[in-house]
Amino acid sequence: MFDRRKFLRTTTIAGATAITLPITACNDAAKAMETPKNIKKPYDGGTLEADITERVKAAFASPIIIDKIEVVDTKKRFFLRVTDVEGNQGVTSMNKGRFMATQTIFTQLAAKNFVGKDAREVANLPNELLKYGRNYKFVGLPYWNGIGTVEIAIWDLLGKLANTPAHTFLGEQVRTEYPVYISSLEREDPYEGETDKILKTIEATGAEAIKFKVGGRMKNTEPYITRTNEWVPYMRKRAGENITLYVDGNSSYTADEAIEVLRMLEDHKVEFFEEPCYWQDLWSHKLVKDAATSCAIAGGEQDFSFDQFKLMAEIGAMDTLQPDVYYHGGMVRTLKISHLANYYGVGFTPHSPKAGPMAAAPTQVFAVCPTLSHHQEYRVGGEKSQRDWHSPVLPKNGNMKIFTAPGLGIEYDTDIWKKEEVFWSSKV
Amino acid sequence: MFDRRKFLRTTTIAGATAITLPITACNDAAKAMETPKNIKKPYDGGTLEADITERVKAAFASPIIIDKIEVVDTKKRFFLRVTDVEGNQGVTSMNKGRFMATQTIFTQLAAKNFVGKDAREVANLPNELLKYGRNYKFVGLPYWNGIGTVEIAIWDLLGKLANTPAHTFLGEQVRTEYPVYISSLEREDPYEGETDKILKTIEATGAEAIKFKVGGRMKNTEPYITRTNEWVPYMRKRAGENITLYVDGNSSYTADEAIEVLRMLEDHKVEFFEEPCYWQDLWSHKLVKDAATSCAIAGGEQDFSFDQFKLMAEIGAMDTLQPDVYYHGGMVRTLKISHLANYYGVGFTPHSPKAGPMAAAPTQVFAVCPTLSHHQEYRVGGEKSQRDWHSPVLPKNGNMKIFTAPGLGIEYDTDIWKKEEVFWSSKV
Repeated sequence: MFDRRKFLRTTTIAGATAITLPITACNDAAKAMETPKNIKKPYDGGTLEADITERVKAAFASPIIIDKIEVVDTKKRFFLRVTDVEGNQGVTSMNKGRFMATQTIFTQLAAKNFVGKDAREVANLPNELLKYGRNYKFVGLPYWNGIGTVEIAIWDLLGKLANTPAHTFLGEQVRTEYPVYISSLEREDPYEGETDKILKTIEATGAEAIKFKVGGRMKNTEPYITRTNEWVPYMRKRAGENITLYVDGNSSYTADEAIEVLRMLEDHKVEFFEEPCYWQDLWSHKLVKDAATSCAIAGGEQDFSFDQFKLMAEIGAMDTLQPDVYYHGGMVRTLKISHLANYYGVGFTPHSPKAGPMAAAPTQVFAVCPTLSHHQEYRVGGEKSQRDWHSPVLPKNGNMKIFTAPGLGIEYDTDIWKKEEVFWSSKV
Repeated sequence: MFDRRKFLRTTTIAGATAITLPITACNDAAKAMETPKNIKKPYDGGTLEADITERVKAAFASPIIIDKIEVVDTKKRFFLRVTDVEGNQGVTSMNKGRFMATQTIFTQLAAKNFVGKDAREVANLPNELLKYGRNYKFVGLPYWNGIGTVEIAIWDLLGKLANTPAHTFLGEQVRTEYPVYISSLEREDPYEGETDKILKTIEATGAEAIKFKVGGRMKNTEPYITRTNEWVPYMRKRAGENITLYVDGNSSYTADEAIEVLRMLEDHKVEFFEEPCYWQDLWSHKLVKDAATSCAIAGGEQDFSFDQFKLMAEIGAMDTLQPDVYYHGGMVRTLKISHLANYYGVGFTPHSPKAGPMAAAPTQVFAVCPTLSHHQEYRVGGEKSQRDWHSPVLPKNGNMKIFTAPGLGIEYDTDIWKKEEVFWSSKV
């Protein structure tokens, strides 16, 4: 299962990101490798939730009861806001489209169940709410995105109440910054122009890695076949030999097709191939991974369970795990996948194609996660899309600094709340 | 991977159900066993959708355009109704609770996308709609239950238009009846009384198999531990040696706990153990299956993808696959899992704890599916819960006859539509 070459590349980068703080990741991972895989017990998740709850309760002696949950339209962006019975608030920016498409599940099965709960128990609330009614049957990205969005806002609340970044509750800080890759989301416009945009963001941020799209998203047809075959060598030529390249297939290929593309990617020294096959098809991912010699296979953006990530590691379907902190049910559940990755000696590179306020929550997780591999995602054009109503989300010298302001670490212009409309409230 | 003892029991029962029609299942499955597992290509799904579409188009020369989809409250039950542009209709009874909890996804992402489509393409529409927007990210039981409920109503429409049972489009009929097990859903009432109820249904139906609940559903705590330890031997004693026993764990156990329960179940000759561990945790199911000597491990009620069932078979996580025809996206998608089971030589026993109109769709699938193992589910008390507004759903001599009326085969008293209220319509 272990490919030493791939593995070492992963942990070396993780090590390089820890900057001035002690690095436990490499030691733990190396230790894990000493034990032959087949006699290891499956990872049981350890005591992460209990440890976090203990830290939170050490900071707050009394319960912090959640009074209401609201989805707020500020005209700039949708926000999820949590208010406790004393009127203290935590917020997170949220994905409006995902919310609208999944509203019943988001509000009725997920969000409203947090009302009346003690926010100090937030690390374990997602586990508890899963046992409500028949919630466990309805899980998926829509359910866990609802749970995750509320959980993230609760961490903002707790951090602000304690006047500390949220990550201080999550574990010992192991890094203060981390290297980013520039993530392109474009499949339709001419690739030459998109390459120009990517290289401008590279120049503005000092980043040394790029991810771009291959295949057609859930299909492998023309013009995407030709575009892929042309763009990969073109990108290598334009970026030069010193830039790390990654690609994202978004479920485009069968295993056989993906293996053919993989050969071409390896010829151009692409270092990971994200979601080559339909995301649910772990067996095909395993076949592609088994065929790889230098390129890592990554995935997990839509996955929403500890068990599925455990399975990826156990059967060797992925070299690198990529949960999304929102879709996967929040910061603690995502951090747990980093611990899982550390246990199995695989990579951890969360999905987060953001350059705005939604980048804050993953950043808080990165501060403490034992394994963090490759580079982390930063959206192309982020240098131009910064808004005057929030503190900047902008890497320098290729690195993003972990926010140090209280809560999630994003500071908002208080004016944005003046035009707010409450779109949904647990009180109505 | 193959346990010949378990496997033979499975196919023998499947063979016994084929009654007067040729049995291809056993031959195919036996042939599959001749090829060593590790050189087999992963199952690719074959040409099922294309074959079905060809059969439908042979029956209907012109397009049958879907005009509207409605969720109708008849006061007796919720129904999903499909109407074509000529006013022809197909209906299926549906689960109101599942609909209410997942409404946005059911209506907006799933149901309304069928409008304007040619019903003759129904076998492939679920595959096509998965590529709409970002539907593929939102999949789960809520999404596929929406797709499945509409698909089932479309099969009712097509069957009625052709004056034939829906299964005639799905493949060659291989059985006209099948043996049932009596399925108890009770965890809270005293088990002695529940056993009485089960044995009454056994007497009324002539069934020779029983399934009952173990564990606490998503938990393994008292009083469920004691109840389980007492009920299993009690049930064996009350039912006698000639009744086949199955149990359902509903995600109650860790792998270690499940293996301990398994020992006790095997002592009492329980023949399958359904969903011992959290349903998403396939790796734990594999560990339990590896520890089993005579009891099969079954699961898949909440699973909603071909790929996940393929994975269960590839890694040996389940002996028997149990998709639900509604939750899994309809009749064709569920039939495909029977073909998959046949290819890998594992069992196929769909989830369907029904004794009313919702039993019709699985029955149409059973008529043609190449592998059908163990017994099929029939809800305890079904003999008493038959209503005067639909044709009976009642086994005799332990067997359920496949309905022969057009469409899904259930006939309704036309009076039930007189008080109907349209709860949701794609037209509004």
